[in-house]
Amino acid sequence: MKTSGGSDAAKRRAGESAAEAVSDGDVVGLGTGSTAAHAIRRLGDRVDSGLDVRGVATSFASRELAGDCGIPLLDLDEAVGPGAPGIDVAIDGADQVAAGGEGDEAEPGVGPLIKGGGAAHAREKLVDAAADRFLVVVDPSKEAPVLDRSVPVEVLPAGRSAVAEAVRAAGGEPTLRRAERKDGPVVTDNGNLVLDCAFGEIDDPDALATTLATTPGAVEHGIFVGLADEVHVGTETGVRVARR
Amino acid sequence: MKTSGGSDAAKRRAGESAAEAVSDGDVVGLGTGSTAAHAIRRLGDRVDSGLDVRGVATSFASRELAGDCGIPLLDLDEAVGPGAPGIDVAIDGADQVAAGGEGDEAEPGVGPLIKGGGAAHAREKLVDAAADRFLVVVDPSKEAPVLDRSVPVEVLPAGRSAVAEAVRAAGGEPTLRRAERKDGPVVTDNGNLVLDCAFGEIDDPDALATTLATTPGAVEHGIFVGLADEVHVGTETGVRVARR
Repeated sequence: MKTSGGSDAAKRRAGESAAEAVSDGDVVGLGTGSTAAHAIRRLGDRVDSGLDVRGVATSFASRELAGDCGIPLLDLDEAVGPGAPGIDVAIDGADQVAAGGEGDEAEPGVGPLIKGGGAAHAREKLVDAAADRFLVVVDPSKEAPVLDRSVPVEVLPAGRSAVAEAVRAAGGEPTLRRAERKDGPVVTDNGNLVLDCAFGEIDDPDALATTLATTPGAVEHGIFVGLADEVHVGTETGVRVARR
Repeated sequence: MKTSGGSDAAKRRAGESAAEAVSDGDVVGLGTGSTAAHAIRRLGDRVDSGLDVRGVATSFASRELAGDCGIPLLDLDEAVGPGAPGIDVAIDGADQVAAGGEGDEAEPGVGPLIKGGGAAHAREKLVDAAADRFLVVVDPSKEAPVLDRSVPVEVLPAGRSAVAEAVRAAGGEPTLRRAERKDGPVVTDNGNLVLDCAFGEIDDPDALATTLATTPGAVEHGIFVGLADEVHVGTETGVRVARR
């Protein structure tokens, strides 16, 4: 999984900081990955202490962990829609977070994100976008002035080559993600494939997001623009929080 | 399936007209629906007479029909990509075709289309967009000055309510498509659901297409903008062809 990058202590500080921002009665989107897992475990501790929340999982993995931690769960379809409670806050990790507008690199940014290292970004984007507030939890190794990590693109199996062509036309280099515990490619929780698409430095994430979203066969891409409300960065000594 | 609307004779004239536009050696995208089926059958007759073509199916249904008609088939992934032959021409139906720019309603248009009555629009768009030329085959009941049919949107099962909310926010009224030969909803060949979204008259199909494409959980929508090169309209007496 996504255990690369920063220390576990830094990830824990980030996750726990966001978990403390949850209020009694909230419906909480539960993210995927090693940093979000710390938030889920802390939320579980708070439920043990009497906090009344319900979780909406972003993946098989987060659903399983939340169940282990005793957090009551709602399906996304029970949380969103007419008459439904809605999602008050989502807590989720990121593979990379761009700095905010001002370029002061000492401050964490609330710029666009890249997600999808865990191949859960389609459902993560559903939950994170539906939430009233989206709190991103990362360690400092995920911060960058400009996004330059490869962008995971979930594709319909039949659309693999056509999407790869479109990615090349947009200046990217696509690689089919291979599985490690099965032969052949990674298959997502939705039954699709993942192309990891290297674009180098992404100067205009919004434009690239639209290009990828409108490519036939692309189910969901890992660029999250304009969704994050807060970024909690766990460090070796504490937590920095940036708000939009 | 999509047998509503015009007469079978009109559909046959449209389909056969497009099948005649295929050249020896072509790789041909094979559409879905009752009008495209006439093109596939005519192409099969031409293969019997010695025409050398290979087909790329847009659905389970078109693959099955092409096989019955003796048309050799390629997977989409074999047809598209570096070193692959590409798709020379695609022939596909439409649920509605908007008039071209000039507003002379006596002429068929090569404007935007709505597709997806057969729930195959995700793969249809992959194939139709990958083709060098895309020939649309319809009867006159599918022509309209402005698109106003409901727009099929294929959605991830978990995204049903969230996409429905986004459709309402964009001024549409979503309805989950129910199956007739099984309990519950229609499930697409990709394992997803379909929301039929009524927007009334669609004044700006391009803008709506982008809104739907960028909605988390929406896998593919049925608005095809800027893809059609020719529209073959079968009538009771002949065929009208409009070219872009």
